[in-house]
Amino acid sequence: MPLGAVTLGDLATLVGGEVSGEANISIRGVAPLDRAGAGDISFLANPKYRSQLEQTTAAAVIVHPSLAGAIERPLLLVKNPYLAFARILTHFHPGPCLPQGVLPGAVVDSSAIIDPMATVCAGCVVSAGVRIAAGVVLHPGVQVYPDAEIGADSVIHAGVVIRERCVLGQRVIVQPNAVIGSDGFGFAPDGQRYVKIPQVGRVVIEDDVEIGACTCIDRGTLGDTVIRRGSKIDNLVQIAHNAQIGEDCIFVAQVGISGSTEIGRHCTFGGQSATSGHLKVGDNVTIAARGGVSNNVDANQVMAGFPLMPHREWLKMATTMTHLADMRREMQQMRQRLQTLEQQLVKEND
Amino acid sequence: MPLGAVTLGDLATLVGGEVSGEANISIRGVAPLDRAGAGDISFLANPKYRSQLEQTTAAAVIVHPSLAGAIERPLLLVKNPYLAFARILTHFHPGPCLPQGVLPGAVVDSSAIIDPMATVCAGCVVSAGVRIAAGVVLHPGVQVYPDAEIGADSVIHAGVVIRERCVLGQRVIVQPNAVIGSDGFGFAPDGQRYVKIPQVGRVVIEDDVEIGACTCIDRGTLGDTVIRRGSKIDNLVQIAHNAQIGEDCIFVAQVGISGSTEIGRHCTFGGQSATSGHLKVGDNVTIAARGGVSNNVDANQVMAGFPLMPHREWLKMATTMTHLADMRREMQQMRQRLQTLEQQLVKEND
Amino acid sequence: MPLGAVTLGDLATLVGGEVSGEANISIRGVAPLDRAGAGDISFLANPKYRSQLEQTTAAAVIVHPSLAGAIERPLLLVKNPYLAFARILTHFHPGPCLPQGVLPGAVVDSSAIIDPMATVCAGCVVSAGVRIAAGVVLHPGVQVYPDAEIGADSVIHAGVVIRERCVLGQRVIVQPNAVIGSDGFGFAPDGQRYVKIPQVGRVVIEDDVEIGACTCIDRGTLGDTVIRRGSKIDNLVQIAHNAQIGEDCIFVAQVGISGSTEIGRHCTFGGQSATSGHLKVGDNVTIAARGGVSNNVDANQVMAGFPLMPHREWLKMATTMTHLADMRREMQQMRQRLQTLEQQLVKEND
Repeated sequence: MPLGAVTLGDLATLVGGEVSGEANISIRGVAPLDRAGAGDISFLANPKYRSQLEQTTAAAVIVHPSLAGAIERPLLLVKNPYLAFARILTHFHPGPCLPQGVLPGAVVDSSAIIDPMATVCAGCVVSAGVRIAAGVVLHPGVQVYPDAEIGADSVIHAGVVIRERCVLGQRVIVQPNAVIGSDGFGFAPDGQRYVKIPQVGRVVIEDDVEIGACTCIDRGTLGDTVIRRGSKIDNLVQIAHNAQIGEDCIFVAQVGISGSTEIGRHCTFGGQSATSGHLKVGDNVTIAARGGVSNNVDANQVMAGFPLMPHREWLKMATTMTHLADMRREMQQMRQRLQTLEQQLVKEND
Repeated sequence: MPLGAVTLGDLATLVGGEVSGEANISIRGVAPLDRAGAGDISFLANPKYRSQLEQTTAAAVIVHPSLAGAIERPLLLVKNPYLAFARILTHFHPGPCLPQGVLPGAVVDSSAIIDPMATVCAGCVVSAGVRIAAGVVLHPGVQVYPDAEIGADSVIHAGVVIRERCVLGQRVIVQPNAVIGSDGFGFAPDGQRYVKIPQVGRVVIEDDVEIGACTCIDRGTLGDTVIRRGSKIDNLVQIAHNAQIGEDCIFVAQVGISGSTEIGRHCTFGGQSATSGHLKVGDNVTIAARGGVSNNVDANQVMAGFPLMPHREWLKMATTMTHLADMRREMQQMRQRLQTLEQQLVKEND
Repeated sequence: MPLGAVTLGDLATLVGGEVSGEANISIRGVAPLDRAGAGDISFLANPKYRSQLEQTTAAAVIVHPSLAGAIERPLLLVKNPYLAFARILTHFHPGPCLPQGVLPGAVVDSSAIIDPMATVCAGCVVSAGVRIAAGVVLHPGVQVYPDAEIGADSVIHAGVVIRERCVLGQRVIVQPNAVIGSDGFGFAPDGQRYVKIPQVGRVVIEDDVEIGACTCIDRGTLGDTVIRRGSKIDNLVQIAHNAQIGEDCIFVAQVGISGSTEIGRHCTFGGQSATSGHLKVGDNVTIAARGGVSNNVDANQVMAGFPLMPHREWLKMATTMTHLADMRREMQQMRQRLQTLEQQLVKEND
């Protein structure tokens, strides 16, 4: 499907949806409901914004089939409008077209093996023994230490550092200035002083993982720190040594995972949430923003707060917390009333 | 006013203040009250430190006019001593004098437009279509992606990454290793897996903004993430996609602002405070350190805590919280006393 | 002691321990108890994992002398097994052997003084007046501003930025993309707008300090920000201007220390803990994870929570917090019961 000659029908085919209305109209871009104009397709993922649907001037709108006929405009009906939006947006923005090869201004060790279909931009330093597969892009200023490996079609943004022997899978995306394989934070006390424990393990990142800007993933002390397939990690997240992150997890910005903690599959950690070390968190667990995990968590739970508790209990607690000073004042009054009653009864019984 | 031949009178002219005492004394530098010696001017911004005023050996001190005559030394009387201190310190430390032009060791694409009065240091990579105005300094190792723009007299410190099409205004300062324009954190669930939503918007940073070290500002999904004129953002702050930050805001270190949230003018966010996404915070709002904003906040309020509450209520709650275990113990005693009373009355009425 | 020809007896000599069993067995590496095989030495630091001791297939195990004879295998008996592990691991992993000198692809100003026994890798930019001592390694892409100094045997990882005039002692380790000497966050309000206060002090880092990845240490406004000997700072930590960190402190990831705060010797700050500015924290203080320090803290205390309280009180409070909604409900019932009692007594006395 060539860019610039796309009909609404073509897009329906792309995302496996159906057109309601004129399928031959030409679509040239994607825009939000409130800013879309002629030639733009838009989307309604959240029913909360349905009022915007009636006012939009988009050429067409991606909606759930239950909304067929909701407005006069052409609609693209599909069960997961947000997912269809992601696919159509990817179609219109295929990413930059960079030349292949080691570009001028990059420094590559002669023992590194760079696939001829990879791109190594200026300012990159690729050390001895590194292996870089086809389709990989190292944006400017990426630093790769000896014997690291980067799998096919991975995109490593500017300023990222990948330390020795770390392994990245295929289609991994690393945002700028992230650090993969920094030393874990391990010291043995020798009286008052601390002696560094060498961190000789690796970081292993499986396929389809995304790592945010300035996120730090420490290498294991002896074994590996592992981020499994499909997990997505936001900016400024800390993953400590020997942590194990399951498949398809979501970690929002500024999360901190302590050493040797194991997180199951398909978990979600809200912003600024954190765990202690050496814990196990089961599959399908959600930790709300700021949640502090200091004990193991069984699978299939939604937890919040610090100390951590079920999210529905946290909501009750949070409401109560705003009444805390009032509660204390009332307790003082009740203590007084109790005393009065007790004295009265003693007196009557005298 | 040449460096090295400055009198106290000259400085008074510079800051629009008045001299009390000898105006012809020579001032050669700025130092804190407790370390200032001959030739140094010092300042008293906070009346709390007034005792230091009496003990200082500074040649002169910048004070509020209400302190005229407080000590024997020459004084520079000005309504805002801290602001005068900032201006005088800037006079004595005008910043490094760097050569202009593209310095050896920088890699600049032939289609980039670099003003001849800009400085591009070694290790920088400037991509196709970038525009850099007069007076800009790119310190070593700055990476600029295609079609980004940097306005006049902006200073970009080492290791900063500015991604494609991002726009920085005039006199913007970016501290080392900050990231401007990383992909927003957006994924559409496809069953258990997540599909990346391309982030095709920009970051727009207006004039006189400062961005801290290792701070990350994500690009918008479709529209722009915007930081308006004069806002100052500390280190390790996360600003998510499509957030809108008003003019003259202050964000202390480790703050996290979630996606699409709009912050008004002249707001202050304390360290480690955070917001949920899609919220509106009015003008002149202060969020205390660690405050967690999960609902809209009206203008002109001082809020704290998580859940968020007015700061004065938070102070009461915080005091009460340290009594929480005692309160629970007393409640158990009161329950017992109530039961005793109830039984006693039942018995009497038998 | 040459690598590859080490006996258990040699290792006992190295760490000042004693062998129980066959001292002539050959040791080729270090592995955890549950994965160690022939030729591996392992260790038991935490009695909690003693069951693993019985099942291990390690060639030998480092244990406390009290465990002599606990299993059939050769043991290395030493009072601090974890420390011995650190030393033996360091023996087997002596770090990379890099060529000395300024390597091709580095840019070094002619006025910089680089010891011939230092290593400056490709992609580094070393500015005017910088001094780098013997044994220092600047990994690829390190940016050093004018007049900074780096002491002997320090290791600066890729992407680190060290700004002007900052001073690092001997054997300092800085993990990738950390920032030393960014401007402190200081602005003087001028009505609604803010005027930048030049930050003209330095960062001084003493011997044997370690700084984590993407950690930011701001320079002092006038004086210096100081990190004293032996302190270890994890990833993504913020240390603000003019902070003073004592010797042998431990700062876990994502800690934030505000401006001018002074921390004593041998303090430990748990993950995501933070302080306000202008405070004093005494020696040997431990702040638990997420602790928020907003007042001075005397020496020799273990504190937690926000508001901060003694850790043992925090534990009680945390338990109570999960009962908060129940407490409020019970208070409402007690209020009702009290009222009933009061009415009953009034009635009786009528």
